[in-house]
Amino acid sequence: MRGKRRKRFPLRISWTLCLVADAESARGRDLIQIIRQAVEGGVTLVQLRAKKLPASAFLNLALEAASLLRKKKIPLIINDRPDIALACSAAGVHLGQEDLPLSAARRILGKDRLIGLSASSLKEAHRAQKDGADYIGLGPVFSTPTKATTLTPLGLRGVREICSRLSIPVLAIGGIDRRNARQVIAAGADGIAVVSAILGARDIFKATRKLKSAVSISGAARR
Amino acid sequence: MRGKRRKRFPLRISWTLCLVADAESARGRDLIQIIRQAVEGGVTLVQLRAKKLPASAFLNLALEAASLLRKKKIPLIINDRPDIALACSAAGVHLGQEDLPLSAARRILGKDRLIGLSASSLKEAHRAQKDGADYIGLGPVFSTPTKATTLTPLGLRGVREICSRLSIPVLAIGGIDRRNARQVIAAGADGIAVVSAILGARDIFKATRKLKSAVSISGAARR
Repeated sequence: MRGKRRKRFPLRISWTLCLVADAESARGRDLIQIIRQAVEGGVTLVQLRAKKLPASAFLNLALEAASLLRKKKIPLIINDRPDIALACSAAGVHLGQEDLPLSAARRILGKDRLIGLSASSLKEAHRAQKDGADYIGLGPVFSTPTKATTLTPLGLRGVREICSRLSIPVLAIGGIDRRNARQVIAAGADGIAVVSAILGARDIFKATRKLKSAVSISGAARR
Repeated sequence: MRGKRRKRFPLRISWTLCLVADAESARGRDLIQIIRQAVEGGVTLVQLRAKKLPASAFLNLALEAASLLRKKKIPLIINDRPDIALACSAAGVHLGQEDLPLSAARRILGKDRLIGLSASSLKEAHRAQKDGADYIGLGPVFSTPTKATTLTPLGLRGVREICSRLSIPVLAIGGIDRRNARQVIAAGADGIAVVSAILGARDIFKATRKLKSAVSISGAARR
């Protein structure tokens, strides 16, 4: 493998617990403060999402998050916008099915940054892997209050089937909380991504810690 | 000047008449069809704007517009998103005051693509020029039905003052129609940019031709 160009980020990333820091779901609370507490609680990855903010406000938030997370060595992933990911030197970008295609994002971000894709079926997940995605955001696993969606939840069975057929990391998302997180990891996901389970909690730190403990135990039990 | 790197686009651009093809203002009509008719009518530049579309839909529209405009040798400018501008090989990007800062866009687009900035005062226009903008979108010149804005219209006097102090091209925008277009060019603008004056017309081709004739006559009269 000598001389083979390796990506900078994936090797170091722990997929265990990803906070999707969604500006709209913060409901007026300070999102940076939430991220800070979640980091203390043990998130291993943060995705920043702000679908309704103007780009300049999104970038300012991203720069603040990037500065905080850099110190903690937690990778930051920007939702939807490769341009903003580049502008804040994020670890990568997460693209939904309605966002830019992977090829367009790759052209901007190059090979050294992560590109994750949302997938809600084996077909989408396979295609994302074939197209060169660095990881899959797979869901919804369960029904979720965060996104108004018509997608059928995959259930643990769907997660198990899809994970067994993919070689890239899978972050399971959608309705995951501390009661079911363990089963999701047991079904084969490399980690979980949550919005409400952390952003909806009164005590961000405590909620994160409980989630982390749930996924960490099951991570060990899985092998 | 030998060896000095020149930009690919600005040298060829005619600033006379820019259509701001705003997806939301098309009100259900086929935007590509509108652009086609406006090109036949004589627009010299098209800016594509779709603030509310998901990125994939915006990109699809941009690819269609780019393909049409390439054949006609009309430059395409993408509003707000350098990533989409790059993905559709547009001539450049137009950034409003709430969009990404110029430096972030330049990093993505390099020196060979245009970056235009909106400015509504001499101060903003000066700063944009200093920061390396390739042109200014200056306005609102008059009050406009397209954008809900609290900005005070600059009037012809404002346009005259600001244009006299800038060295980069100025596209005047805001409430410009075929009755006042001539005066705007006489006040020093290199061209006009319109939304409603073309998109609001029943006959796109005819409306464009009348605007073009208004700005062309005054363009000649200015010198």
